[in-house]
Amino acid sequence: MGTTNEELFVKMVLDAWFGKLKRADELFDSLPDEALQNEVAPGRNRGVYLLGHLTAAHDALLPLLGFGDTLYPEMFDTFLIKPDRAVEDLPSVEELRDRWKKVHEVLIAKCTNETAKGWFEKHTSVSEADFATQPHRNKLNVIISRTNHLDFHLGQLIFLKTPKA
Amino acid sequence: MGTTNEELFVKMVLDAWFGKLKRADELFDSLPDEALQNEVAPGRNRGVYLLGHLTAAHDALLPLLGFGDTLYPEMFDTFLIKPDRAVEDLPSVEELRDRWKKVHEVLIAKCTNETAKGWFEKHTSVSEADFATQPHRNKLNVIISRTNHLDFHLGQLIFLKTPKA
Repeated sequence: MGTTNEELFVKMVLDAWFGKLKRADELFDSLPDEALQNEVAPGRNRGVYLLGHLTAAHDALLPLLGFGDTLYPEMFDTFLIKPDRAVEDLPSVEELRDRWKKVHEVLIAKCTNETAKGWFEKHTSVSEADFATQPHRNKLNVIISRTNHLDFHLGQLIFLKTPKA
Repeated sequence: MGTTNEELFVKMVLDAWFGKLKRADELFDSLPDEALQNEVAPGRNRGVYLLGHLTAAHDALLPLLGFGDTLYPEMFDTFLIKPDRAVEDLPSVEELRDRWKKVHEVLIAKCTNETAKGWFEKHTSVSEADFATQPHRNKLNVIISRTNHLDFHLGQLIFLKTPKA
C-alpha cells in the first residue's frame, strides 16, 4: 500500500511537471525569434532572458536531484544570478532554443527513470541531519516548486503572443 | 507507513498552496485600488479582473472538494466564463478584496481540517467509475493544479507593482 501510494503521488506531481514543460515547449516553438526579443511587459524581462532563465533553472535541477552535472554551467551567472540586460552578449536565440531542448531531453529522461522510492529521498542541498527531521525536503518537492516557478513565468511569456483582436 | 507517507504528501502540497496564497494575499494588500485598475500588460487583463478571477476560482473549490457551497456563485459567470470587460459593472475593488479574504478564510480552514485520507478521495466532478481506474484524480491533485494556476497569474500581477528604478 505504501508503494502504491508513493507511485500515485509521483504520478500526480510528474503529470503536472511534464504537462507544463510541454506547454512551455509549445509556446517557445510558436514564438518567432523577433518576438522573443520583446519585453513581456514594458520595462520587464525579455522573452530571450526568460528562455535562458528557465533553461538554466532546469539545468540546475540535474545536480540538485543527483541526476548528473549541469550541461551549461556558464548560464548560471547570466540567467539565474544577474537580471536581464546585465550581460550584454547573450547566446543567440537559436542557441538558447537548442539548449532548452537538450536540457529537457536529459532531464525528462532522468525524471522518467527515477523510482518512486528515489523521489522521496533527499535532494543534494539538504543535509542528512536536516532531512531526518524534515522529510518533505525530498526530490519530489523540488519538482513541485519548479513546476510553480515555470507556471509563474509562463503567465508572463504568453504576453509575447499577439493578443486576439 | 502508508499513513505517514500520505501525511507527508499532503504537507508537501499544502505547504506550496498556502505559501502561494500568502504571497498573493500580500501582493493584493500591497497594491492600491488604483493600481488594480491597470492592465497587467498592454491589452491584457486588469488587476481587478484577476482579483475576481482568482477569488471565483478558489470559491469554486469549495463544492469541488466537497467542502460546501460557493460563497459567491454570481461571480462564476463574470470572472470565470467571461473575459475582462465583457461585464461592465464589476463589484468595487473594496468588495472584491473583502470576498477574497472571506473565501480564503473558509477555504484554508477546510483545507487545514481535511484528513490525509480525505485528500486522496475523489473530487466531486469525477465519477466513481472513472476514479476506480484513475485514482490520481483526487482532491489533492486539484490543489496541485490550482497552485500552478495561482502562480501563473501571480507572474502577471507582479507587473502592477512599480518597477525598480
